[in-house]
Amino acid sequence: MHVFETQVVWQQDKACEVKSSDRPALTVATPPEFGGPEGVWTPEHLLVAAVDSCLLSTFLYFADRFKLPLRSYASAAQGRVEKTLEGLRFTGIDVSIRFAVADAKAVQKAMSLRLQEKLEKYCPVSASLGCPVRLDLDVSQADDVA
Amino acid sequence: MHVFETQVVWQQDKACEVKSSDRPALTVATPPEFGGPEGVWTPEHLLVAAVDSCLLSTFLYFADRFKLPLRSYASAAQGRVEKTLEGLRFTGIDVSIRFAVADAKAVQKAMSLRLQEKLEKYCPVSASLGCPVRLDLDVSQADDVA
Repeated sequence: MHVFETQVVWQQDKACEVKSSDRPALTVATPPEFGGPEGVWTPEHLLVAAVDSCLLSTFLYFADRFKLPLRSYASAAQGRVEKTLEGLRFTGIDVSIRFAVADAKAVQKAMSLRLQEKLEKYCPVSASLGCPVRLDLDVSQADDVA
Repeated sequence: MHVFETQVVWQQDKACEVKSSDRPALTVATPPEFGGPEGVWTPEHLLVAAVDSCLLSTFLYFADRFKLPLRSYASAAQGRVEKTLEGLRFTGIDVSIRFAVADAKAVQKAMSLRLQEKLEKYCPVSASLGCPVRLDLDVSQADDVA
């Protein structure tokens, strides 16, 4: 079993400091949508960031395991929060992933690995949510202009 | 409906940069437990931080609504990740909340508000997870030594 710990201390207004051992402290506040300040990380953005970055982490695990010559990876995630009968809830997170590999052979290999299925199943953060996480993966061949 | 967006760009090894409009960029990496570096935020810590800070945000909403004279608030969260038949999953997050209010009358009021129940029901991040979030609330009277 692995344990992940954080501490929160309320600062003022709608903002707090979030710490976790020797990691850089984060200022987090209620989103502007709910009366918080602009330009500050919010709990909702942290949840989406957790999903977005955990998918990369899981992707890197498989890229390494299958010796995929990865050249670049970028993703964009959108989490939707909606009023439901039970209150405000995340109703879905969509993640668009674009990655590039070394050559045409590697593109074929990437396409044969069923990476989307693997990410959906093995990304621990996405799979721990109560709402659907939808992935869209796109692979291309890196331009070897070097 | 509210939309929360992030972008991830892989940097090197097991680390990425996470952005969200004009918020400060975050470096995030695979946890040390899974081969990542020390001292860097991880997807798993971000998920726990999202829960921990969203509970404060929800708490502040009710403190304001019920005019609770809040003096301090600090919490500590522990998320457990375990190997299950489906793969690694968060199996539970425990959050211990300690807050202080102005005087004995406010302590009584806080105790009558069923804050734990309200947080469990209305914290959008906690309530969007597929694993249980267990809360432990403790209220005290702030020392007015000023």
